Amino acid sequence: MTPRTISILGATGSIGASTLDLIRREGGMWREGGMWRVVALTANGNAEELARLAREFRPDIAVLGDETRLPELREALSGAGVACAGGAGALIEAASRPVDLTIAGIVGCAGLAPTMAAIEQGGTVGLANKEALVSAGEVMTAAVARNGATLLPVDSEHNAIFQCLAGNDPADVSMITLTASGGPFREWGAQQLASATPAQAVKHPNWDMGAKISVDSATMMNKGLELIEAYHLFAVGLDRLRIIIHPQSIVHSMVEYRDGSTLAQLGPSDMRVPIASVLAWPQRMDTPCTPLDLAAIGQLTFEAPDEQRFPATRLCRQAAEAGGAAAAVLNAANEVAVAAFLDGQIAFTRIAAHGEDVISAFAPPAPASLDDVLAIDREARARARLLTQAA
Amino acid sequence: MTPRTISILGATGSIGASTLDLIRREGGMWREGGMWRVVALTANGNAEELARLAREFRPDIAVLGDETRLPELREALSGAGVACAGGAGALIEAASRPVDLTIAGIVGCAGLAPTMAAIEQGGTVGLANKEALVSAGEVMTAAVARNGATLLPVDSEHNAIFQCLAGNDPADVSMITLTASGGPFREWGAQQLASATPAQAVKHPNWDMGAKISVDSATMMNKGLELIEAYHLFAVGLDRLRIIIHPQSIVHSMVEYRDGSTLAQLGPSDMRVPIASVLAWPQRMDTPCTPLDLAAIGQLTFEAPDEQRFPATRLCRQAAEAGGAAAAVLNAANEVAVAAFLDGQIAFTRIAAHGEDVISAFAPPAPASLDDVLAIDREARARARLLTQAA
Repeated sequence: MTPRTISILGATGSIGASTLDLIRREGGMWREGGMWRVVALTANGNAEELARLAREFRPDIAVLGDETRLPELREALSGAGVACAGGAGALIEAASRPVDLTIAGIVGCAGLAPTMAAIEQGGTVGLANKEALVSAGEVMTAAVARNGATLLPVDSEHNAIFQCLAGNDPADVSMITLTASGGPFREWGAQQLASATPAQAVKHPNWDMGAKISVDSATMMNKGLELIEAYHLFAVGLDRLRIIIHPQSIVHSMVEYRDGSTLAQLGPSDMRVPIASVLAWPQRMDTPCTPLDLAAIGQLTFEAPDEQRFPATRLCRQAAEAGGAAAAVLNAANEVAVAAFLDGQIAFTRIAAHGEDVISAFAPPAPASLDDVLAIDREARARARLLTQAA
Repeated sequence: MTPRTISILGATGSIGASTLDLIRREGGMWREGGMWRVVALTANGNAEELARLAREFRPDIAVLGDETRLPELREALSGAGVACAGGAGALIEAASRPVDLTIAGIVGCAGLAPTMAAIEQGGTVGLANKEALVSAGEVMTAAVARNGATLLPVDSEHNAIFQCLAGNDPADVSMITLTASGGPFREWGAQQLASATPAQAVKHPNWDMGAKISVDSATMMNKGLELIEAYHLFAVGLDRLRIIIHPQSIVHSMVEYRDGSTLAQLGPSDMRVPIASVLAWPQRMDTPCTPLDLAAIGQLTFEAPDEQRFPATRLCRQAAEAGGAAAAVLNAANEVAVAAFLDGQIAFTRIAAHGEDVISAFAPPAPASLDDVLAIDREARARARLLTQAA
């Protein structure tokens, strides 16, 4: 059996680390007679860690997005027999090298072009970058179809849905339900929310995440963006997509079929579970995750979301309904608003309000290409920045 | 498209009624261009209801197990163009007529021979008779393999497991977890259990069932027999089968995979859901069941089973481990003990104890044929009756 080839975009981030952890645990082998061969590892600026990973996993090429750090990478990898490159163009070149599986783990809009390059080489792409699909929307799904690529969701909710759809026809789906922890402010009143601090917002109850995504979890914007992502990944339409609050984050999402059967995927809050399901798909591989013990957990609770206190999910649904550039604008505006909140410039409750203000004021035509998407993203950020400075 | 042919064994029982309800709702049609053609409908003694169903669904033949009621059936069906027959041999003849799908809904050991006849004609058999698989065990699974038949489980727990296995390799399963409501005595102490009355035992919290199966639910023997059934249906071995108490009966069962993913099937306590999944398999069909509303349900709870107070599941596990005739003996002894309990002859806590006494005293060689199974069943019942009379 020939080895499967893999490239990891964002190798030094949490998705990259979890992916390489799984490959490492099996000594680079995870299936009888099978073995991964790493083609490209990329990072933004962490030359030291990328060099360490490249020495261990021996890719054909190691690439830094930040070209100024390239000399450091070259030095650290001298004599290792691994090619080095740097800059945005080098990231795209590396991502476009043919591989069986690409893990697209670059956070935010920076991951958009490399992810599109991976899609265009026609292999399977494990998508961990929700902003890419939210912003690029039909531009990305059209590229997937045109190039015969396969998109496998890595996000725990979408991976759960993907697993619950196995062996079934999407036409038979009556409802897809994304679960949301509800974030750290789930039980807070409207007044409390208005004075929530960045320190309070970044304490996520179940997952260890970065500051931006933690704030998105607190506003429920994260779940709204996931709703848009699900809308593009699973062809069931917005009227068959909903959100439910499930504070324990054990049930990662659910699919209900027209016969009344609901399939749910449950598991620990460990990204290695969905990553493993993507690595081994359509088979399964071992992970070191602790098995689920529902008797020890005792109870799972569920409640309806409150879009009065947390309007972000409503906004996202409206953006998906509007189509075209709306989701890209909302995503860009949200990134700017979250940064402004973390910098103490705007109140917590202004984050969603800013998103709404920006999409109300800026409605460019639907993007037809990746360049269009990037231009819309830049323009939306500029407008959002002006708006936060005015605030 | 040619119609799919179906026979329903036990048409006047609850499984039969639910099956025919689903067929009726679609005007006998459930898939575009498709239509069911009913080949045989059978019942035990309810000639009037069987005649009514036969006039509505126009099978080739209507059969009563109780031959003494045959004249009544003939009279009720005179001029309807439906052949009539009666007696055990006629049941088997009807069940052996080639059909695409047989719903095996005859309760208890009476369903064993007709179910085996349906398997031997090589079609798909929707198995709603757990005693048949528990008693016949390898005799039945060997017949399935030999005749190229397909066994689809109708029991809600096994149907849930079957759905959770779709698109997956059983070799990747790390644990199958059967859920159990815990029955009406879940929170009772040992002393209370000793004085439990038949009226208390037949009040099942979530499902509307007959007296025998309600008592089996109260003793947990029902779940133990389901464990044996699962052992024969899903080739994962006893060490990958467990039971968890889930009082709300919303999660019907779960499958955990080696990557840490658990898939669960959830739904209303309505047998039309699993029956529909069998009727439409591998597709889905509509049912009139109320969609699941977890936000309204609010919470799902789970706890470990207590085999001190409810030893039946331990007994069943031991019988499955022992193999051969043990499960057939236990099942027969249990039926006699439950009848004795319902008649006020023995205490609730003696039901499992009787089962244990009978399997300790009677260990016949493994059955090699259906006749062997039936002989073991008869002998076990006779011994169990002697024991209950001595009690």
